[in-house]
Amino acid sequence: MTGAAHGDEGQWQPHQLPQLKSELKRIGIQIPAERIADLTKHPMSAIVSLGGCSASFVSPDGLVVTNHHCAYGAIQRNSTAEKNYIVNGFLAKTRAEELPGGPNTLVYVTEKVENVTERVLKGLDNVAGKQRHEAIERRVKQLIAECETDKSYRCSVPAFHRGLEYYRIRQMMIRDVRLVYAPADMIGNYGGDIDNYEWPRHTGDYSFLRAYVGKDGRPADPSPDNVPYKSKDFLVVSAEGLKAGDPILLAGYPGRTSRYKLPSEIRFARDVSYPATVAEYQADLDTIAAATKHSKNDEVRYASVVKSINNRMKKTQGLLDGFARKDIAAIKDVQDAEFRAWYAKQPGVSKAMLAELDAAIAADMTLDQQQFAWNVATNSDLFKSARTLYRLALERKKPDAERESGYQDRDLAMIKARLTRLEQSYVGSVDEARFAAGLQRYAKLPAAFHPQGLDALLPGVADVPALYRGSKLGDTKTRLALLDADAATLEKSEDPFIRLAVKLNDFALKLEDRSKEVEGNLEKVIPQYMSAVIAWKKSQGKPVYPDANSTLRVTYGTVSAYSPKDGVTKGPFTTVEGIVEKHTGKDPFDAPKPLLDEIKAKRYGQFKDPVLGTVPVDFLSSADTTGGNSGSAIVNKRGELVGLNFDSTYESITKDWYFDTAITRAIHLDVRYMLWVMKEVDHADNVLKEMTIKYPKQ
Amino acid sequence: MTGAAHGDEGQWQPHQLPQLKSELKRIGIQIPAERIADLTKHPMSAIVSLGGCSASFVSPDGLVVTNHHCAYGAIQRNSTAEKNYIVNGFLAKTRAEELPGGPNTLVYVTEKVENVTERVLKGLDNVAGKQRHEAIERRVKQLIAECETDKSYRCSVPAFHRGLEYYRIRQMMIRDVRLVYAPADMIGNYGGDIDNYEWPRHTGDYSFLRAYVGKDGRPADPSPDNVPYKSKDFLVVSAEGLKAGDPILLAGYPGRTSRYKLPSEIRFARDVSYPATVAEYQADLDTIAAATKHSKNDEVRYASVVKSINNRMKKTQGLLDGFARKDIAAIKDVQDAEFRAWYAKQPGVSKAMLAELDAAIAADMTLDQQQFAWNVATNSDLFKSARTLYRLALERKKPDAERESGYQDRDLAMIKARLTRLEQSYVGSVDEARFAAGLQRYAKLPAAFHPQGLDALLPGVADVPALYRGSKLGDTKTRLALLDADAATLEKSEDPFIRLAVKLNDFALKLEDRSKEVEGNLEKVIPQYMSAVIAWKKSQGKPVYPDANSTLRVTYGTVSAYSPKDGVTKGPFTTVEGIVEKHTGKDPFDAPKPLLDEIKAKRYGQFKDPVLGTVPVDFLSSADTTGGNSGSAIVNKRGELVGLNFDSTYESITKDWYFDTAITRAIHLDVRYMLWVMKEVDHADNVLKEMTIKYPKQ
Repeated sequence: MTGAAHGDEGQWQPHQLPQLKSELKRIGIQIPAERIADLTKHPMSAIVSLGGCSASFVSPDGLVVTNHHCAYGAIQRNSTAEKNYIVNGFLAKTRAEELPGGPNTLVYVTEKVENVTERVLKGLDNVAGKQRHEAIERRVKQLIAECETDKSYRCSVPAFHRGLEYYRIRQMMIRDVRLVYAPADMIGNYGGDIDNYEWPRHTGDYSFLRAYVGKDGRPADPSPDNVPYKSKDFLVVSAEGLKAGDPILLAGYPGRTSRYKLPSEIRFARDVSYPATVAEYQADLDTIAAATKHSKNDEVRYASVVKSINNRMKKTQGLLDGFARKDIAAIKDVQDAEFRAWYAKQPGVSKAMLAELDAAIAADMTLDQQQFAWNVATNSDLFKSARTLYRLALERKKPDAERESGYQDRDLAMIKARLTRLEQSYVGSVDEARFAAGLQRYAKLPAAFHPQGLDALLPGVADVPALYRGSKLGDTKTRLALLDADAATLEKSEDPFIRLAVKLNDFALKLEDRSKEVEGNLEKVIPQYMSAVIAWKKSQGKPVYPDANSTLRVTYGTVSAYSPKDGVTKGPFTTVEGIVEKHTGKDPFDAPKPLLDEIKAKRYGQFKDPVLGTVPVDFLSSADTTGGNSGSAIVNKRGELVGLNFDSTYESITKDWYFDTAITRAIHLDVRYMLWVMKEVDHADNVLKEMTIKYPKQ
Repeated sequence: MTGAAHGDEGQWQPHQLPQLKSELKRIGIQIPAERIADLTKHPMSAIVSLGGCSASFVSPDGLVVTNHHCAYGAIQRNSTAEKNYIVNGFLAKTRAEELPGGPNTLVYVTEKVENVTERVLKGLDNVAGKQRHEAIERRVKQLIAECETDKSYRCSVPAFHRGLEYYRIRQMMIRDVRLVYAPADMIGNYGGDIDNYEWPRHTGDYSFLRAYVGKDGRPADPSPDNVPYKSKDFLVVSAEGLKAGDPILLAGYPGRTSRYKLPSEIRFARDVSYPATVAEYQADLDTIAAATKHSKNDEVRYASVVKSINNRMKKTQGLLDGFARKDIAAIKDVQDAEFRAWYAKQPGVSKAMLAELDAAIAADMTLDQQQFAWNVATNSDLFKSARTLYRLALERKKPDAERESGYQDRDLAMIKARLTRLEQSYVGSVDEARFAAGLQRYAKLPAAFHPQGLDALLPGVADVPALYRGSKLGDTKTRLALLDADAATLEKSEDPFIRLAVKLNDFALKLEDRSKEVEGNLEKVIPQYMSAVIAWKKSQGKPVYPDANSTLRVTYGTVSAYSPKDGVTKGPFTTVEGIVEKHTGKDPFDAPKPLLDEIKAKRYGQFKDPVLGTVPVDFLSSADTTGGNSGSAIVNKRGELVGLNFDSTYESITKDWYFDTAITRAIHLDVRYMLWVMKEVDHADNVLKEMTIKYPKQ
């Protein structure tokens, strides 16, 4: 229950910005708040989503800048042992040389945002549980179907404040996106996993893509005939730089935060759920390490899985460390008590609401434990594939509009891509080891975690080898062939994993039903609660922003250092000299020789910061970000691109739950480093020329 | 060959300060340079030495403030299991409660400093080698004998610039020094060895002693009849505090630096001598650990030995790390080349001098290796005791004035104390293990390290157990009884260690002779070299300070942070909140509850810093310090006590060889923390009342 305009906290919906006028003015932003609120006008009309990452147009010809790690898939799929663009970087000197980004590289341009709360919630005031959840799902699906008039558009109806408001967002989805330029991995990912979430940071986390459309200007399937998308707007790039204390705006698509959780939820995460999650991640990593240790090939196949688990584990551990450092639950206790006292005094409010809220949250926590246990027990890629296939077959019995979301026709391409992609990170013996180890861990979980009826349905650890010996689902063709199989066919299948999926189906559906029941109850009471919180904050003159939900948000802040511990200050800038300091010659600190040479020669040119006396690499700001904000444009007081967001400091990880103004800092790439590398190291003159760059006065 | 007044480098002899007038003025020191140069005037007349540590008078009644670790011996010798003043601290509420500091707690008041160069060097212009060394020693001894008119005085004639100048220093030695007040170890030594050389630092490294003299005002043996020494001068304490950028002066007795070493000497230290030394320390620590691991009692006995080796090892390793970080030899190469070019152009200078210098240094490096090997081969406290006893007996055959320094009558008390003190840190089986392991390491040293003739004289590893079985020197009474034995008696001794000392005596004396020869040659040529360097610097308008030699020096600087690596800033202040951050409840981070309570209650009172908003604990300055500066008074621009020096940062350790302005920082206790603990935690009101304290205007 924070969320007030305090410090630089706040992931604001663009339409809220006029309420923050005085704050923006205070820090020195010169663009009128009303202008930033208008998605059809500069600079917001230059901001795009890549689905999971954020980005922005930087030329009138569809040139997009984002993080290196956001373009990684496109770089990787074009790399071979001979042309290793990951290691060496890639630069298309002409448009003809630009490389296809592949089916997962998409650019989403938000075109319309409408408040559809009335249509979603009408008549549901007294409906709760699964009935409410399903009614909302039906209406949301209907709203989406109306909106997705052709495959050039992707629509969504996310809930804000967990269902207090619903907005329908229509995005143009550009599906021919090409790789223009990426620096070498040891620039774009310098420091690798070791530096992930860390400061000091020296990562040049940027890459360039280009959006292509058909000759009619509308999104089209990838084709050599396509032409660069004439973006309505683009950001001017400023090489004038920032200094400590300067204001910034950051626009992007933050994924998920939990800022309005109750103290009980924080304690549950801190004391139960997160410790169990970290232990589970570590156990799974140990299993993978043991199962792959004798084969370099197996190890490589699981490298991205390991990286992903490690990343999630580091984040969860960071949250636990943060909870240990600061008693956020106690802080929330105080806020919660203040709110409840205020609420009790309001005339005409439901006295039962808070009790209902507490009950719904308690049910959610119980469910969470059992879903966790279900995941531990089914830690097998073959089982998950089998389950997807059978579930899809069951859903396909229904008309498309009535199907569970995720299994509609619009989702088929995604499912197919997932079942195909598995081959890149699957080894039978490793999956078998993970499944067996997971079953053993499940057996040892406390009783409260075991969902009723599941134990009897699960295979024994001793049965696991036979499951893998008998299954053909490890073969991609077999998996894909079953995409069209109907439920009856699958129910007759001899494949042990399909049989297991069929056997566990009733249980899994029941767990889903419970989840919908719990969700529906939360969706009924939390909006009432949030509406009261908003009224409470309004009574104090403070606007409230909704938790992040992967929709376009604007946050602001200032370039600023922080103190991770007494007597030590970090940031706000790093410099190219720090690259040399960290360079060991070994991955991930193996800076390319041309980069080191330029640094040693001190050829800083126009990118030399007058205060630092050298080229800055990364910087910190107090802006409020989270996962999904990767690649977000950082603009200066005039709306010019000065940086790209790509990470936060370790001490900031708790910000998903509580924004601690003193220590929360986002890590941004300084655009001057990007421009300097482009000019002096990579000689990307064509890309530089295409952008509009403001250089400092000499 | 640095030494110019650059940045805040320089350990200046007080008489040099008038040359630095403009520098002192630039940083904001208000006391006239001429005043600081006068040892008989305030503030210098308040500065004293404890022998190895520095200190200052802070009341007219002989109250002395120094570091906790400098008063540790006095605290320890008064502590028992019942009255554990180490753990609980100690406070004498009245003078009668003050505790005897013991024979090693001495206060030296410098009374007179005379330039005696002429008397030391007259007629020696062309004398070199051992002959020169011995002639100088003789004259120095004569100068000392003339000066030490009674046992109230201790005189010394240290060489400056390795023999360019000699000053005779007469110090009044007060030998009844009592413990007045020490905070708990977990304040005075908070962070312990883990935080040694580290920042952020939260150590309250202070304690109070009092000098007592006879009723006649002259130093006297400890006696209840003695009265507090009426110090001529004392420092006023300022609670007004400092802020970043403020100037400070620091006065104390720095031990030893090597700022004028040649590049070849740096390379020898970096590549040969220091790596061998670190390996030797580590091996010895491993031996001690293995030999004490089954007995808590043995472990405790060797705790201070281990601590001391660890401390030296950390310092040596810090030097190696610093050499690895910055190529100091290359920097010195440039300076050396500049100097040699300048020198070559001077009319009438000896062209042979530089060749002579290089040869003398080469001989010194060869000798250094063999002395190192000798120490490795004789790593036995019993052998060292035997050698001391036999050497003393041999020297006693000569008239006192002709004896080797260290074995004169004036040294007898020290020798006795050393032979007595051994019992606190000796266990036969551990000493045996160290000796045997040292002999094994000696055997493995490269050929260049083995001094001619030594191998054949040393016992075999297999002989070691019999040596220890047969020796009685482990018994303190036996050792002390032999203090009076003459050489003939010892030569007939059956004690295997006495026999070994007799057997190795010729070799050891020859090694000493070689050392004198090398020293004499260095003492001849280095003064010529330094005199040329001083002329060279003078031609650039820069004064030169001599390397530290445990004599009174003044250094100045400003309160300032530093960057240990790109993107990170450390200091300049830590605060009491950092104590809570570090507190784990386990030694060395086990802050006393009353301290934690005061911090939590935020009872900062008059000691709250207006910028930090809390009580500062320690701070950093750019002043030039080294070992021996522990306890040095830090005074503000008006000469008021604002801090106590007690350590340097790890990155600063190389300053003994090269003062790197960017990263060299000394660590000081902020006097506000001391006063705050005295007032709020320890209630040392009587001590507070005795001092003259200036509080900030409210």
